[in-house]
This record gives sequence, C-alpha cells and structure tokens, in this order.
Amino acid sequence: MKVYGYFRSSAAYRVRIALGLKGLGYEYAAVHLRKDEQSGEAYRRVNAQGLVPALEDERGRFTQSLAIIEYLDERYPQPPLLPATPEARARVRAIALAIACDIHPLDNTRVLRYLLRTLGASEEAKDAWYRHWIDLGLAALETQLAGEAATGAFCHGSTPTLADICLVPQLANARRAGIPLSAYPTLTGIEARCKALPAFEQAAPERQPDAE
Amino acid sequence: MKVYGYFRSSAAYRVRIALGLKGLGYEYAAVHLRKDEQSGEAYRRVNAQGLVPALEDERGRFTQSLAIIEYLDERYPQPPLLPATPEARARVRAIALAIACDIHPLDNTRVLRYLLRTLGASEEAKDAWYRHWIDLGLAALETQLAGEAATGAFCHGSTPTLADICLVPQLANARRAGIPLSAYPTLTGIEARCKALPAFEQAAPERQPDAE
Repeated sequence: MKVYGYFRSSAAYRVRIALGLKGLGYEYAAVHLRKDEQSGEAYRRVNAQGLVPALEDERGRFTQSLAIIEYLDERYPQPPLLPATPEARARVRAIALAIACDIHPLDNTRVLRYLLRTLGASEEAKDAWYRHWIDLGLAALETQLAGEAATGAFCHGSTPTLADICLVPQLANARRAGIPLSAYPTLTGIEARCKALPAFEQAAPERQPDAE
Repeated sequence: MKVYGYFRSSAAYRVRIALGLKGLGYEYAAVHLRKDEQSGEAYRRVNAQGLVPALEDERGRFTQSLAIIEYLDERYPQPPLLPATPEARARVRAIALAIACDIHPLDNTRVLRYLLRTLGASEEAKDAWYRHWIDLGLAALETQLAGEAATGAFCHGSTPTLADICLVPQLANARRAGIPLSAYPTLTGIEARCKALPAFEQAAPERQPDAE
C-alpha cells in the first residue's frame, strides 16, 4: 500500500491516522505542496484533481480522504471507524463532513493563494479569512458535541471514529495558525484523548519524513 | 420524514434526488437562505451549523447532505446509491466528494457574501471566483470520468449513484451562472441521462414549492 501525502496536508493526516488505527503499514510518497508538485504532470496521472492524499493498493488508486478511509474501513473492518447503527453512522459522518466540507476546503493552500495573488488580499485579510471559517465551524461543532448525549470520550462514544480522524488535523491547523481554542473545551478535550493514542501521535505532521 | 431545504441550495437538491430515487415521500420545510433564516435561532436548533439541508425522521435529526444520503441508503437499500465492491464504492464517493468538498463549499452563499462584504471584492471578482472553482473542479472530473472504464451511462456504470446525485446540482449551479460547459461533454452527457429520470426532474430547484 502506498500513500501520496504531504506532512502538513490535513487531508493526508486523516488517512495516516486511519491507517494507524487499523494497524496497516504503508509506503509514504511525499508530494511537496509548497513546490507545487501536486499540479505537475506526474502527480496529475495519480490524481487528476492535483490534490493529496491518494492511496494505491493491489485493487487500484483511490482519492479523497473520506472515500479512502471508508474504503479502508470496508476492507479492514477492525477496529471499526464508524459505529453500528445507520443513525449513529450518520452522526459521525456529519461531524466529519462539517469539517471536511465546511471548514477545511476554504482554508486550503490553493484558496489562500487565490486570495493573495488573484484577489490581491493582504496577509492580514488572508489570515482573518483563515480564522473566520475555522472559528465558525468549530463553534458550531462545539455546540453540537457539548449538547448531544452521544458524545463520549471521543466525538462519538468511547472509541475513535471518522469524526475524530477529521477533528484532530483541523485543530492542528488552528493551533499552527495561533487561533485561540479556549472556547472549544469539548473539542480540545477529545483532541487530548486522541493524541494520547499512538495512531494519532505517529500520524502527526512533525513525525513525517518530509516534515520541515 | 421532513426535509429542511431551500429550492436553490444544491446540497438540499442532492437529498431530494436521493429521496426520489428511493421512492420516499417527505414533508418539505423551506428555509429561506436569502432572508438568512438558516442563521436564525429557530433553525439553529435544527442544525447548529446553520446550513441546509437537514432531515428529521422517527430516529432523529440528520445534517450534511452526504451523511443523510448514506443514511437513507443504509435504511432503504433499494435501489442502491452505491455500488457493491469497496473499490467501486470508493470511486463513487471520491467523485461525490470532489464536488461536495472541492467545488461547492467555495461557491456557497456565505462565502460569496464574505468576498463582497468583508473582503470588498467587486461583483466581477466574485463572479470570477465562482467560475474559477467550478471550472477547476469540472475539468478534473471530466478528465477522470472520460478516462476511466468504470464510467458508463452514469458516473459509475449504468444506474445513478451518489456521484450523479452530486454532479447534477453542481452543473445546475454552473448553468445558472452562465458558465460554458462545452469542455465537459462526458459530464453533460451524464447530466442529460440523469435529467430524463423522474427522480432528478422532480427534485429540480424550479419544481420546489419555495421556488421564486
């Protein structure tokens, strides 16, 4: 199994956590986003979208972090990354998607570049944008998770799921940008419990071979 | 079953198509996005994120269109909206996510408002932004779908899946914005075959009770 990623890509970080939780080993192929390697012809043959991560195995080549993680969960069911009932699965997927659709894509490298280079936004305006979408998204998640009985030591119950796999990399981005997180005690409590697990710890950006 | 939506929300449009394909009836609760009803206290109690769609049934309240559709597919398996093998399911989910994560959230109402009101972008700059992310995303999808043997009459094989459910509303947005689609013949061919099906046709924005 081969994973195309970048140490700082939070979508690649999600896949690394999932592989770790499943106990699956993999070869790591670094795609340097700041050198624009993801837009080059060689990587476009791996993923026409020019985005990391991608995963290759004996059955094919897969893109989009959440699709990759669902694939891993279907092929290697233990430990499960989604709960058992349809309604609980919907809750976990909704938390993951609230991060993967409504926070992360707005703060992606290519979007920040467009703000600076095409819209001519200042560094301050770009930073305010970055923070705006994170705060908006995390505030809604904090309200939801603090208010729902299904929240446990992790986003859903007492074991990590797809929701935690999305939460931890998003909070890492927020921390790196210096965004205060004191308004999100439920989220940071879950984060702390995740980070105590080897799968999360070993997937961290600073632990990757291409970390700067 | 009750669906909170807005005629023009392409995420709500996805859920309507899925319900139609499953043959499920529902009550429709319009949330007027241009009047900001989604940010009001009443709707925030339905969805802390303040986004449509949401779905309520006897088991609870669900948010995030893709999570809702997977929930419907698990509870009402016929006809299936995902193929049978893990690798085919991953392909369909990746196409859906390429739209739901990497095109749609960038062109959401709240994002366009931020560009205009907070960043002070011109109408022209806002329109160019809108078009940029649609073209970038559709070009990658066209390359992928045109090049892969798994593409059939629909995005995957000969029956509509979650991928088509995301594609058709995204193309409707592009058409409404007057974006030329001649560079995407594979996508528009699939769109035409989808639109010939009653479930897609009846879910269209202009067919909804809150259409303007």
